[in-house]
Amino acid sequence: MSPIPGLHTVGLLGGGVIGGGWAARFLLNGVDVKMYDPDPEAPRKVGEVMANARRAMTKLYQPALPPEGTLTFVDSPEEAATDVQFVQESAPERMELKQMLLRRASAVAPADVVFGSSTSGLLPSMMQEGMTHPERLVVGHPFNPVYLMPLVEICGGALTSQATKDRAFDVYTAIGMRPLHLDVEIDGFVADRRMEALWREALWMINDGVATAQQIDDAIRFGPGLRWSFMGTLLIYRIAGGEAGMRHFMAQFGPSLQWPWSKLTDVPELTDELLDTLVGQSDAQAAGVGLRELEALRDDCLISVMKGLRGVGYGAGEVLEQFERQLFSRAVQPDVTHDLDQPLRLYEVTVPDEWVDYNGHMNDSRFFQVTSEAGDRIMRFIGVDDEYLTHSSYYTVESHMNFGAQAMAGDRLYATVQLLSHDTKRLHHFTSIHRADDDAVVATAEHLMLHVDTVAGKSSPASAELLANLDRLAAHHSQLPKPAHAGRFVGQPRA
Amino acid sequence: MSPIPGLHTVGLLGGGVIGGGWAARFLLNGVDVKMYDPDPEAPRKVGEVMANARRAMTKLYQPALPPEGTLTFVDSPEEAATDVQFVQESAPERMELKQMLLRRASAVAPADVVFGSSTSGLLPSMMQEGMTHPERLVVGHPFNPVYLMPLVEICGGALTSQATKDRAFDVYTAIGMRPLHLDVEIDGFVADRRMEALWREALWMINDGVATAQQIDDAIRFGPGLRWSFMGTLLIYRIAGGEAGMRHFMAQFGPSLQWPWSKLTDVPELTDELLDTLVGQSDAQAAGVGLRELEALRDDCLISVMKGLRGVGYGAGEVLEQFERQLFSRAVQPDVTHDLDQPLRLYEVTVPDEWVDYNGHMNDSRFFQVTSEAGDRIMRFIGVDDEYLTHSSYYTVESHMNFGAQAMAGDRLYATVQLLSHDTKRLHHFTSIHRADDDAVVATAEHLMLHVDTVAGKSSPASAELLANLDRLAAHHSQLPKPAHAGRFVGQPRA
Repeated sequence: MSPIPGLHTVGLLGGGVIGGGWAARFLLNGVDVKMYDPDPEAPRKVGEVMANARRAMTKLYQPALPPEGTLTFVDSPEEAATDVQFVQESAPERMELKQMLLRRASAVAPADVVFGSSTSGLLPSMMQEGMTHPERLVVGHPFNPVYLMPLVEICGGALTSQATKDRAFDVYTAIGMRPLHLDVEIDGFVADRRMEALWREALWMINDGVATAQQIDDAIRFGPGLRWSFMGTLLIYRIAGGEAGMRHFMAQFGPSLQWPWSKLTDVPELTDELLDTLVGQSDAQAAGVGLRELEALRDDCLISVMKGLRGVGYGAGEVLEQFERQLFSRAVQPDVTHDLDQPLRLYEVTVPDEWVDYNGHMNDSRFFQVTSEAGDRIMRFIGVDDEYLTHSSYYTVESHMNFGAQAMAGDRLYATVQLLSHDTKRLHHFTSIHRADDDAVVATAEHLMLHVDTVAGKSSPASAELLANLDRLAAHHSQLPKPAHAGRFVGQPRA
Repeated sequence: MSPIPGLHTVGLLGGGVIGGGWAARFLLNGVDVKMYDPDPEAPRKVGEVMANARRAMTKLYQPALPPEGTLTFVDSPEEAATDVQFVQESAPERMELKQMLLRRASAVAPADVVFGSSTSGLLPSMMQEGMTHPERLVVGHPFNPVYLMPLVEICGGALTSQATKDRAFDVYTAIGMRPLHLDVEIDGFVADRRMEALWREALWMINDGVATAQQIDDAIRFGPGLRWSFMGTLLIYRIAGGEAGMRHFMAQFGPSLQWPWSKLTDVPELTDELLDTLVGQSDAQAAGVGLRELEALRDDCLISVMKGLRGVGYGAGEVLEQFERQLFSRAVQPDVTHDLDQPLRLYEVTVPDEWVDYNGHMNDSRFFQVTSEAGDRIMRFIGVDDEYLTHSSYYTVESHMNFGAQAMAGDRLYATVQLLSHDTKRLHHFTSIHRADDDAVVATAEHLMLHVDTVAGKSSPASAELLANLDRLAAHHSQLPKPAHAGRFVGQPRA
């Protein structure tokens, strides 16, 4: 049963890429779906979108999604609109087709069932013609992939009621989207108009042989596109204007409107009136937030986006990854000879923003992750290399953690590892996570690892070379005092 | 001393937002800077950019940056070009001014010192007029903030040598940027042309009263702008074309070029020749990577970008954060009827690909993460809600894990939680992670949590309501047998 109040079943008209995306978003939020699409291939196509969406949405959200809703294919628009609380139309962009579907479906749906249309450019005033209760039609224009992209543009037609817009807003919000109310009905709405401008300029460049598809895309994704993922042109330009803001920016760059900087040369005249409107809206948008704060926000967002993409190793994330490798190899080689009479300092990390949970500090599981990374390093240290990993490895079998202090985003942490004991199959070590600022211990972990023949899938003795390295390390580490937290059970009174 | 071979000192002409950004990027990469700017305020302004950049670049890169270079302000363009290995010009966008600076500086610099110009729109062929060794002038057009944005467009003029372009490419790469070679010299180059198209369309909307600055920006940053941070229009549209790719996309959307979807209606004619060029370049760009792979890449990038922004809590990250809070409070309601005579089944998850490590199965730290999520659910179960979290929470203080079996990508897991004990401040519970397929226990965790007054930052008693709920649960769970793995220390022999 749907966990969203008042939204148990939705009717979907059209099961292409967009309709399938809607199906995925609703189903994975626990809402049942009745879908009408005359294409006999629709179930297969929707199934493919669902597979993508299951994978993606599970990755995106930390909390578990509710049990998946049920998908039923029906044979008519009327059936899709029966016993449902909301209808979304995503048919091909032909006015007569959309009008037909909306007319038939609205004839059977109770008056309070709101209809959203996914059209990316047709006017709602025309779509609602012929509907039963036309006031309940509203454009809800999503972006591909619908199961991930937050934006949905809400735009009413001449007959659309405010209650309809409000209901659509609530439904879309309940499935994780970010509705944007538009006040004026125009072809292509706001986002597609701007995508179209960008697209037309790109076509000119290819047409004129000025740049290739690859160059055109690279000029965006390594540059302005990174900023557009969190701030639009207007706010970006306000920041570029410096302390004096938008009016200064326009004084500096307004004249370039008359330059041939775009093939798209039909530009509005920069009257005082337009300038005042622009400056006023820019001030409203900034809502009193000052330049320095906006700059820091911009920088933090850029950092987060690039670090996020680093995980995927694509676009700006690939640039970052490669440069970090350069930085590593350029840095003066650290003393490779570790002081074996101390716990080994084997891993360092700066706490990224995404490790912070709702409590405002680094999540407990991330501490475990840091000690697990340190455990990997000690494996490497005693001689486990990529070749060794093709047949054997150490698996963690038991762990114990103590949490002493919090770590915040941006904190620099390092981990030290002490070998507690070992035999031919077992490796028992103790990790301390320190804050680099003051060397304070923020958490400790004790790990017992078992050497495994990964081909046979069972425990096995480590190689002679590994054992010799362990013996050498143990000769030093056995002289170290046993860490206070080693050997504890949960809740054991402190010594 | 600079860690970059052959690049010890650079000369910078101009110390505004862009020149200051270059100074920051070079200095923080260990390169010394000689800066010429006649503005007496330049040192203060550059100092402000440096403060932003130090903070941002330290956050961005995991490896430590080299020791900072030295910044020296000089009194003439000639001095800025003396004893340097590279010069970057970032003066205001006036041709005569740039020509004067380049002429004077190039008169003293040895012939092998390359000059980059930050101009965002002026033609290098005109800028190099009057220079000594004009072949060494190249446009190196960066984006704001220069210390974070990877893109730099490289564009030569009529006299520019290939060696000059190569040298600029190497210099920019060495300081972490992503140079993009352009083949044809046009006003505004590639990125600014497209930014300009987007900007002009925005101005029309404000001029026509169709949308406000805020709406225009929101229509990008919650939608297409998220995609543009890693893929450009061309590749995005190729994916939208489905299996049939770019030719299919154009068949579907080509006609809309003739629709009034943009104020910018001067569009190239879609001839067969243009179509073939476009399709050919799109194929080259995709380089044989298939649709499903591109879709997965797009989704992974979108997820990373949104998760990154979640850490900042801005834009799409704020949407994600708010929705996760909704999911959370929807997920477990105390009134949902659980069988209190059994461990509570509170969390389910499908193992995503990125939880798998080099051993080919789910990383140990991800098991901890699952039990940590289950711990969150039991907090919710006993009544911790968003309001409660504004003043109090439970923090984990000690944990113990046992690993029994492996989990693979795609495995469905669920976690059950058993309350072991509690008092006014402490909550001691035991989590078992099961594989849903066969209910086998794959790992267990014992957690001790402490109730904390998060405002005062110290332990505190839980609310009466929470304690009553805990008492009610304990009346049932105290009847359950103690789990075999509870109370263990690491390496304790099995019973």
